[in-house]
Amino acid sequence: MRAEREGDEAVDVDGDGAELRSEIGRLLTFSDAVFAIIITLLVLDLRAPEAPPGRMSRALLDQWPAYLAYVTSYLVVAVSWLSHKGTFRRVVRADPGLHGWNLTVLFGTALLPFVTSIVSRALQHGDRADERVTTGLYGLVGVLLSIGWLGLYHHLSRSRALLHPRVPPRVFAVERGRGLVGLVGFGAAGLAGVLVDPVVALAIFLVLPVFYALSSNGLFDLQRRLRRQPARR
Amino acid sequence: MRAEREGDEAVDVDGDGAELRSEIGRLLTFSDAVFAIIITLLVLDLRAPEAPPGRMSRALLDQWPAYLAYVTSYLVVAVSWLSHKGTFRRVVRADPGLHGWNLTVLFGTALLPFVTSIVSRALQHGDRADERVTTGLYGLVGVLLSIGWLGLYHHLSRSRALLHPRVPPRVFAVERGRGLVGLVGFGAAGLAGVLVDPVVALAIFLVLPVFYALSSNGLFDLQRRLRRQPARR
Amino acid sequence: MRAEREGDEAVDVDGDGAELRSEIGRLLTFSDAVFAIIITLLVLDLRAPEAPPGRMSRALLDQWPAYLAYVTSYLVVAVSWLSHKGTFRRVVRADPGLHGWNLTVLFGTALLPFVTSIVSRALQHGDRADERVTTGLYGLVGVLLSIGWLGLYHHLSRSRALLHPRVPPRVFAVERGRGLVGLVGFGAAGLAGVLVDPVVALAIFLVLPVFYALSSNGLFDLQRRLRRQPARR
Amino acid sequence: MRAEREGDEAVDVDGDGAELRSEIGRLLTFSDAVFAIIITLLVLDLRAPEAPPGRMSRALLDQWPAYLAYVTSYLVVAVSWLSHKGTFRRVVRADPGLHGWNLTVLFGTALLPFVTSIVSRALQHGDRADERVTTGLYGLVGVLLSIGWLGLYHHLSRSRALLHPRVPPRVFAVERGRGLVGLVGFGAAGLAGVLVDPVVALAIFLVLPVFYALSSNGLFDLQRRLRRQPARR
Repeated sequence: MRAEREGDEAVDVDGDGAELRSEIGRLLTFSDAVFAIIITLLVLDLRAPEAPPGRMSRALLDQWPAYLAYVTSYLVVAVSWLSHKGTFRRVVRADPGLHGWNLTVLFGTALLPFVTSIVSRALQHGDRADERVTTGLYGLVGVLLSIGWLGLYHHLSRSRALLHPRVPPRVFAVERGRGLVGLVGFGAAGLAGVLVDPVVALAIFLVLPVFYALSSNGLFDLQRRLRRQPARR
Repeated sequence: MRAEREGDEAVDVDGDGAELRSEIGRLLTFSDAVFAIIITLLVLDLRAPEAPPGRMSRALLDQWPAYLAYVTSYLVVAVSWLSHKGTFRRVVRADPGLHGWNLTVLFGTALLPFVTSIVSRALQHGDRADERVTTGLYGLVGVLLSIGWLGLYHHLSRSRALLHPRVPPRVFAVERGRGLVGLVGFGAAGLAGVLVDPVVALAIFLVLPVFYALSSNGLFDLQRRLRRQPARR
Repeated sequence: MRAEREGDEAVDVDGDGAELRSEIGRLLTFSDAVFAIIITLLVLDLRAPEAPPGRMSRALLDQWPAYLAYVTSYLVVAVSWLSHKGTFRRVVRADPGLHGWNLTVLFGTALLPFVTSIVSRALQHGDRADERVTTGLYGLVGVLLSIGWLGLYHHLSRSRALLHPRVPPRVFAVERGRGLVGLVGFGAAGLAGVLVDPVVALAIFLVLPVFYALSSNGLFDLQRRLRRQPARR
Repeated sequence: MRAEREGDEAVDVDGDGAELRSEIGRLLTFSDAVFAIIITLLVLDLRAPEAPPGRMSRALLDQWPAYLAYVTSYLVVAVSWLSHKGTFRRVVRADPGLHGWNLTVLFGTALLPFVTSIVSRALQHGDRADERVTTGLYGLVGVLLSIGWLGLYHHLSRSRALLHPRVPPRVFAVERGRGLVGLVGFGAAGLAGVLVDPVVALAIFLVLPVFYALSSNGLFDLQRRLRRQPARR
């Protein structure tokens, strides 16, 4: 270990910018691939129903919770990817903490197809108790995901060395607010699903990605800029 | 929120071209991965049949609609990817609208394996009513996909700031024609499947990707250019 | 259509090298993702057997054809990827023909998990007739794959404009020989599987990727170069 | 063959740095995609249980080994990706040996979802004998994976021509130590699982990725550097 540390010491592979960019480059390629897989895995839960001849249309209609679950989760993952893009646009270097939080965000996102499928199954084949448990679990995974984002934003707000020189860390201190909304929103939805009514939980699950889409950095400051400088050449 | 907006204001991360290119870069990496996953997920529906000993060849032959569905959908996704490449070759910046329409195109494309599998199942195990419903749904997803492309082309035709300086937005105004052909073609095929004969629908589903392959920008202006300038050094 | 062609005419997006490289770039990202997915999809056929308590070790042993199939196919896909890399290292532009042949190669490669799984199933649960049919089909997909490679090499051997200036098209004329070996090899193996003995077919299936690994450009000219210039600084 | 070799001879495609970087670039894109797929495939084993109405919460609780297996394997794959990134940051060229060892590492990593699922199944539905066999197999795959890493580090320690000019090969001679820890650790865990107690094996399986995370190059020299140069501009 000691010797390894020394060996590394002598090496300053990241002396020039090129290598550094490629390092954040792999984080982005890996994350893009994970998001792309998660968003397409969701469609695997949409399966041809094994209906007897002549009963296909009825069997397809009975799958409506699966379609709703698919649309909701597609929105959540798409918005997560847009947030990820909007965040890492400002980042030029990675450190272990950033990798750790990024992997936490991906871990939470990767659980979405699973909790989506159990909610969908409970709505199709379960009773009220099943719906309560599963919407509760969906909320729990949402809370985990929000903690990942909160940690990521918090870490970046304290790591000027990782940011593009013109990006004030304060930007990410403010972003934490959006993480908190998720934490509270998913937590409340999960509790409402367990204690009040699963329908309330589902409504909040649909509203949250809309909020994120509307408040996302990646989406709106670019829009604003284009509005002001409508035609560059 | 307010403060966040201000924080962003002060930041002009996209001042130089490098960052901007990397932004469209992530859109491309993400889209390429999604297309790659969809085109390979299709093969998951080709499964080893659970035939008793000695009945494998018969069981494999009985799966013919699955093979036909696989070939058709592979063609559709391959042509979609080529169109996507041909389109984004001309794009240098992304804005929220572009992300929105791109995610709509990917959403529609991601549904192709599902509708392919239900058509395939109806042909294998269903009756005429099942074939009607499922070809109708395939047409519906095709219409959704075409709306995504139409919106994408329309948005680009009005967003000079997103295009390469030498690309006239008029190019995309014209591209909308191809989106319309898809909208009408898939719509007609779906209706023909429901009202007339599923075989008519399947024929149109096979013809449409051929039309797109032949009319695609990405394919033919390059070909034309190479024909005229056959050997650059 | 006419107008669209004209619109394109006015545009010379590919005037400078940067855009062109990014075009071949998307072909590579897409192909890399497809190869990566195919090589990992193979492992999906290795499933935990549904054995009663205490019978897991026996059930795992009974799956030996699945393990053999996995190893063989992993080798084939890995070697295909290395060949792809070795080939496209010399390519700087794409035209429709190249895209067409590349998509044919990917189509053939994507079928490998399916034919692998049916061979594996026939060895586990089928009789001799099943083994014959399935090894024959594996050979057929191998022939299709070889045709894709042959077409790709043939196209490149006639398309100087697509190649790196210092690469003589003759290189790809010679590469066609390797495609032919695959065509004949897979064809012979398939026929041997159907007419003689499935074991003969399996042996050839294992030998072919070894031949490709040993004769691959991507592997050996680099090795040779390193041998001669052992330590550049 | 001969002629092909000659044809290649005349070509020095890799004369300038750009092409070489793109070659290692494809190795990285391919590897990133494989890691991304493996880490998300794991979640496919988390399925909605087919419980009768009202029994969902119980059925979900009964799946606890699947959750534990998912978390463990996510950690292992995440740490493997970080090690891969930390290693290839120092590599600027690829040769056949490097490709071979890299593909061995990916082969071993791709087997993790399979061995994870059989351990998980044994814990859920098997008896003690099943747990022994499956933890033994998990250890075996871990040994295979460690051999891949050992070979990769050993190859790099003897291949100065592949490394960034400022990286002493000695660094990788030292890295072999970490590969050996894995070899011994996974081997011991597998044996303990078979001979002593599966719980001991599971404990070691959880400890090993933690060790790798703590000792990883990719993680810690960057952290150290940032500690010393806390705010560059």
